[in-house]
Amino acid sequence: MNPKIKWLRDKIARLDMQGMIISNPLNIKYLLNIDAEGVLLLTRKENIYITDSRYIEHVNTILTIDDDIIVWNVTDVSQDDYENFFMFCENVGFEENYVTYAKYKEYMHKYKINNLVETENLIEKQRIIKDTEEIEKIKKACNITDNCFEYLKTYIKKGMTEIQIAKAIENYFLENGADGIAFDTIVASGENSSMPHAVPTNRKISSGDIITIDMGCKYKGYCSDMTRTIFVEYVQEYIKPIYDLVLTEQKKVQKELKEGITTKTISKIVEVDFKQKNKDLIHALGHSIGLEVHEEPILSSRAPEIMIKENMVFANEPGIYISGKFGVRIEDTILINKDNCESLTKSDKEYCIIQG
Amino acid sequence: MNPKIKWLRDKIARLDMQGMIISNPLNIKYLLNIDAEGVLLLTRKENIYITDSRYIEHVNTILTIDDDIIVWNVTDVSQDDYENFFMFCENVGFEENYVTYAKYKEYMHKYKINNLVETENLIEKQRIIKDTEEIEKIKKACNITDNCFEYLKTYIKKGMTEIQIAKAIENYFLENGADGIAFDTIVASGENSSMPHAVPTNRKISSGDIITIDMGCKYKGYCSDMTRTIFVEYVQEYIKPIYDLVLTEQKKVQKELKEGITTKTISKIVEVDFKQKNKDLIHALGHSIGLEVHEEPILSSRAPEIMIKENMVFANEPGIYISGKFGVRIEDTILINKDNCESLTKSDKEYCIIQG
Repeated sequence: MNPKIKWLRDKIARLDMQGMIISNPLNIKYLLNIDAEGVLLLTRKENIYITDSRYIEHVNTILTIDDDIIVWNVTDVSQDDYENFFMFCENVGFEENYVTYAKYKEYMHKYKINNLVETENLIEKQRIIKDTEEIEKIKKACNITDNCFEYLKTYIKKGMTEIQIAKAIENYFLENGADGIAFDTIVASGENSSMPHAVPTNRKISSGDIITIDMGCKYKGYCSDMTRTIFVEYVQEYIKPIYDLVLTEQKKVQKELKEGITTKTISKIVEVDFKQKNKDLIHALGHSIGLEVHEEPILSSRAPEIMIKENMVFANEPGIYISGKFGVRIEDTILINKDNCESLTKSDKEYCIIQG
Repeated sequence: MNPKIKWLRDKIARLDMQGMIISNPLNIKYLLNIDAEGVLLLTRKENIYITDSRYIEHVNTILTIDDDIIVWNVTDVSQDDYENFFMFCENVGFEENYVTYAKYKEYMHKYKINNLVETENLIEKQRIIKDTEEIEKIKKACNITDNCFEYLKTYIKKGMTEIQIAKAIENYFLENGADGIAFDTIVASGENSSMPHAVPTNRKISSGDIITIDMGCKYKGYCSDMTRTIFVEYVQEYIKPIYDLVLTEQKKVQKELKEGITTKTISKIVEVDFKQKNKDLIHALGHSIGLEVHEEPILSSRAPEIMIKENMVFANEPGIYISGKFGVRIEDTILINKDNCESLTKSDKEYCIIQG
């Protein structure tokens, strides 16, 4: 049997559930590595994936006999079949954070289930720890992102707009093996860089500009996330202390983030250091990365506290924003190893001054 | 008070609800014309929009005193406030097709509501009939789409890939006033055109090719949707009877679709005509269009039957697909008037032969 399905069956058995309905396509992608629309049922004896004719061929290409999954075409499933799937099941789990209230009621009725019980993100929690294959995919996404940054260093010229640069990034990803972007690319120049979630505009790049570039791609479904703050022709003096502070803290996180520290403690380190310089960490220090670019846990003193463990993957992204003037953010995608953490995005973080 | 909010308050009152929680951002966009993250509460006496600091400025730019909406920053809302919002409300409506089961439980707890009741897509149902402003936005989106098609007639050349053409379409939209694409553009050439949902590939356009182009953009949130099937240098003889049949049926729909006919009847007309020629209508004949490109009702004999009314907007998109060989689809965005229907996309539908 597919080892992730085996894990899930053991897990729900320990929670006194005799079955589970998995509807979130990202959880299904995680468990079975298929990109399709459908629903996965773990019944007492079988693992059943119900999809439609558009996806049957793709699904049968990916799944092997060893996966031990029975694939049904939705048009072949009768009401009797639905009622039989969970017959004699006392408790059947479902994804209460994905399934709408209307769908919940539909499931109760269609499958004739007595107890549809909440599973408290149990698959999402397992997704926090990455396996070798997942790490390889994230590494590849990070590698494409690094190469894109190298390309940008010579591509960006004065007179170009933020939108133009953002498009060039997205084209680069598509033309260099990525599935696509992991999130809307941020290119924020001059005073626009003071907004952490700036949307690219038609503002033209000029000499002396600071440019924050926050970009990431997907490779086989897995995301990268990297930010570099760069300069056009020269670095304005008033920016340097802020840049140096952000970079120092980003490297400090890289040094301190390892198995055994908590999400809250690591965030507090940066918050306290920023505070000493009269600055605030206005967004989270980071977040888990995987099939989604923003996953839990969040590296923040305000989010639920989680112990950092080996094979977690995070964004490490401290930033300082001077309202209406400029902002600096430096971000890497990092992998937690046993005794240290490893940056999976490897682009240089020292002052990058492009010749426009 | 904002007239749509007034309508909604009257509507829920008639359904014996003393309040409603609106969470779906598209429904909030429809009601208030704001693009933000937040939740709209209709309480016994007030209309409250709770958002966060990222959106307060935008929201205050859009809403006027006449809208009669009180804007709260989420950080200023205490647990007491939440409990007061629906005090003395017996029944409070919510969007059961948008809100997850977990969120439903959170609402019950946070707002201390006795009866959180289903509203059966009442806002979505209202969205089916467009008002003058909405129609103007859809017309503008259709106009940009028509202009893009004119541009494509001279842009497309032999040797270009489907991906390249799809990107040119998306760039055209962005550079000509659209917010962006309404859906992933389909450019399917040669045998790829036999798949209704083809994804653009690196296949190169060559002489004698058939190309199906299904494209649409958004203008101020509202969508257009148009398909044209075109030819490179000449039309292969075996395609002509299929093209002619699809075009005849598409025009027939345009003639028959008006107030008083049902979604099922109009679809049956095409199904029967196709059947006579030994062909099948393998997807729906069309769908409503608005803030989303695919909205209900669906023009299909298998979907719930709805009476067509004035000021509905639909895609009219019959298609025939010869497996492994080619496909023809012709689609317009159309507006239902009192006595006829009006095509909002106006690009020519007769044989379009480009000189590659």
